[in-house]
Amino acid sequence: MARERAVVSSAASVIGWDQETYLPDAGHAWRADQLAWLSEKAHELGTSSAWGDALAEAEAAASAPALLAAMRRDFDRATKLPGELVAREAQASSLAKQAWAEARKKSDFPSFAPHLQTLLDIANEKADRWGYEVEAYDALLDTYERGATASGIATLFDTLRPRLRDLAAAAVEKSAARDAKLPPGPYPIEAQQAFNAKVAAALGFDFNAGRIDTTAHPFCTTLGPRDVRLTTRYDEDDFTSSLFGVMHEAGHGLYEQGLPGPEFGLPSGEAASLGIHESQSRLWENHIGRSWAFWEKWLPVAAEHFPQLAEVELADFIAAVHRAEFSYIRVEADEATYDLHILLRFGLERRLVSGELAVKDVPSAWNESFEDLFGMLPPDDTRGCLQDIHWSMGGLGYFPTYTLGNLNAAQLFAAATADESIAAGVAKGEYAALLAWLRKHVHSKGAVMTPAEIVKEATGKDPSPEAHLAHLTRRYL
Amino acid sequence: MARERAVVSSAASVIGWDQETYLPDAGHAWRADQLAWLSEKAHELGTSSAWGDALAEAEAAASAPALLAAMRRDFDRATKLPGELVAREAQASSLAKQAWAEARKKSDFPSFAPHLQTLLDIANEKADRWGYEVEAYDALLDTYERGATASGIATLFDTLRPRLRDLAAAAVEKSAARDAKLPPGPYPIEAQQAFNAKVAAALGFDFNAGRIDTTAHPFCTTLGPRDVRLTTRYDEDDFTSSLFGVMHEAGHGLYEQGLPGPEFGLPSGEAASLGIHESQSRLWENHIGRSWAFWEKWLPVAAEHFPQLAEVELADFIAAVHRAEFSYIRVEADEATYDLHILLRFGLERRLVSGELAVKDVPSAWNESFEDLFGMLPPDDTRGCLQDIHWSMGGLGYFPTYTLGNLNAAQLFAAATADESIAAGVAKGEYAALLAWLRKHVHSKGAVMTPAEIVKEATGKDPSPEAHLAHLTRRYL
Repeated sequence: MARERAVVSSAASVIGWDQETYLPDAGHAWRADQLAWLSEKAHELGTSSAWGDALAEAEAAASAPALLAAMRRDFDRATKLPGELVAREAQASSLAKQAWAEARKKSDFPSFAPHLQTLLDIANEKADRWGYEVEAYDALLDTYERGATASGIATLFDTLRPRLRDLAAAAVEKSAARDAKLPPGPYPIEAQQAFNAKVAAALGFDFNAGRIDTTAHPFCTTLGPRDVRLTTRYDEDDFTSSLFGVMHEAGHGLYEQGLPGPEFGLPSGEAASLGIHESQSRLWENHIGRSWAFWEKWLPVAAEHFPQLAEVELADFIAAVHRAEFSYIRVEADEATYDLHILLRFGLERRLVSGELAVKDVPSAWNESFEDLFGMLPPDDTRGCLQDIHWSMGGLGYFPTYTLGNLNAAQLFAAATADESIAAGVAKGEYAALLAWLRKHVHSKGAVMTPAEIVKEATGKDPSPEAHLAHLTRRYL
Repeated sequence: MARERAVVSSAASVIGWDQETYLPDAGHAWRADQLAWLSEKAHELGTSSAWGDALAEAEAAASAPALLAAMRRDFDRATKLPGELVAREAQASSLAKQAWAEARKKSDFPSFAPHLQTLLDIANEKADRWGYEVEAYDALLDTYERGATASGIATLFDTLRPRLRDLAAAAVEKSAARDAKLPPGPYPIEAQQAFNAKVAAALGFDFNAGRIDTTAHPFCTTLGPRDVRLTTRYDEDDFTSSLFGVMHEAGHGLYEQGLPGPEFGLPSGEAASLGIHESQSRLWENHIGRSWAFWEKWLPVAAEHFPQLAEVELADFIAAVHRAEFSYIRVEADEATYDLHILLRFGLERRLVSGELAVKDVPSAWNESFEDLFGMLPPDDTRGCLQDIHWSMGGLGYFPTYTLGNLNAAQLFAAATADESIAAGVAKGEYAALLAWLRKHVHSKGAVMTPAEIVKEATGKDPSPEAHLAHLTRRYL
């Protein structure tokens, strides 16, 4: 039964992937119907009384209690939502995604607002049905990060805010003084594709069970236990944009490829949370991809693909890669300023869900908060509140997991490289031992333990921001 | 209910399209499960007692009797197959397609044989459940060409065989004497893509509701009422290979885009038959794409994309396009020899279904029959009995519709261009009037009438091979 549900929900993933990559414009309306139907069926399968009975029977037999508890939790949450609501959300978000893409092009928030309102109403309806102790946002957050609460995140972010602001300001100032830049383009797209594929394979991404395509908004999705799709986008003036994108998505992909395949569709074969997922992408993107050791090995290879790099000194190249500046777009932000973008979004969406902030006021609230954190105003909503796809997917409660991912990445990487043989491999640009450590301590765990338990068991410490702040300080100051 | 079934079966089409275009190797097993599940669900929806009751009620009210008769026929055929059989066939053919692709690479028929046996057994099981008067092949053929019978096709093909063999032999001899060839390559793939897209748009293909991708075996599939996907493959030594492929698939695509969209999922919104479908692809590929008038307009445009064409004389170019020769591969065959490939396949598969020919003897039977018709022996099974995807999809009974399509194309094109304004447009390379005629007389008809009725109503004559033979004689002799 778990297998059948996995077959159906992965079929929905195939169709969702095609929507992002290849669907012609006129095909969106019908596509929304296809997604709605499949989402409702997957939901029906996961909430059927047959499933409930089988679960109760297994619980009575009391084998594998942790796995059963995770399944019970998923089942109880799913059964609280009627199939009609699941289908309605799938359809609304499929249409909202298209509306968002159009609105973003034209910086036209009002054309997207009714879609956001619909999805916000659906999110609140879901939260009400799931139930919560303190605020509706908790119920939404729990979908992405089991055990996390809005007040817990708010406390963490309040601690981080002053330290991150100071760190970012100092990094930006230092970087501006040096003003390091990559040699000018063009970096032809085909050469970028060839180089990126080499790097992804070197990290351990299995192209026999995955591929890379092109989309407006990069992502990673799993269409079956041996079918993991990464996407990226290309900037002919800067090859590192697609490269770091691919390393990021490959980090997600390595996690998916490392989950126990035969358990696909069960909590034991699923990612633990978005905060753990993001720790894997950030680890490979930032702790590996933006490191000296990585570029010692890969800069000469890059120069074979991009002749303009032939004369570049490693120190100058690294300075360009570590450039820090305040910018409008989250996905293009450097490590030093990235988390400020998340603090902003968490604040806004928590107020949206509570009703304190009205949809129509999102652009002005965004700009006010942005000016407060970054000291500048977005020139338009395209570079402001319309830049991210998440709300158009109904993903309220999703954003804070990015910063949790950054914190986890630093803590896990520090723990892994405390092992000298792993550190020695990383120093030589060889990643098999690091990947094996992640496979053992993270990937193979599935979603049976909570995210915090996984981090604690892997690193010996409770999750904390210290490793991340230490990493940023070392790298930028 | 018809709409829901259409949503589900089109979701299966999306997933099938991805299998052909982008699925990584390791993903096939899971993909087969996805296709099996969706096929079974679509079947369940189309055979539900609720559907049957609604149909009976509408029949009693006696509105739209022709549409209802078509729906009744589809319903009765579908309910004769258990869902388990439908899922089993979808899964077997998904796996067989992958096995066939491997076997074709290595000319390894024995590795494909067990898959073919499975699909042949399933085909016979289906025929038995559907029932038939004379032979099982009739029941299979009826899936693709309503009202056709094996003995009717055999009589037609027996009449055609001697005339086609004489015509082909004369055309090949004449063509060999002239020995016209295109200038050598390379014709870069990107230039081919740009040129093909221009031509497809000029025929009327709507890229807002469709696209072109690359596959080993070109096809056209409809993923929703406004989402039609064409595929092609590229030969850097011969740009006409992908071009005529695209014109062929665009012919299918124009038909799909011209079906009544709001009727999607009902017989009134479906293609009438494969023989009618193929008439559209052949009409655009051969009657338009291989004509003098077409190249008068498009050769100068082609020369902008492929500089080596700049000095080519139109007469020499046309002679190369009209080159006729005996060759091993059906999809690369010219018009003069194409139907001989079909005659061969029909003969073999009719004997396969009746049990007169064993699966293991397919290669030798193929080669014997090929030598008889073409006067030469295929050098291997890759260029012999393993060349086509159809049997690996369970498509026994499919092949004869190609020749029916050729006959229909010639008859429809002759009838359309009997209108002077359409003929004048075609002579100038303008196709709006021709497309409008096809929309009115063929596309808008859906699948309510039989294929033969559509041809008769559009052309004023019963379907006959005379227009096709006259066309070939004019073009080649």
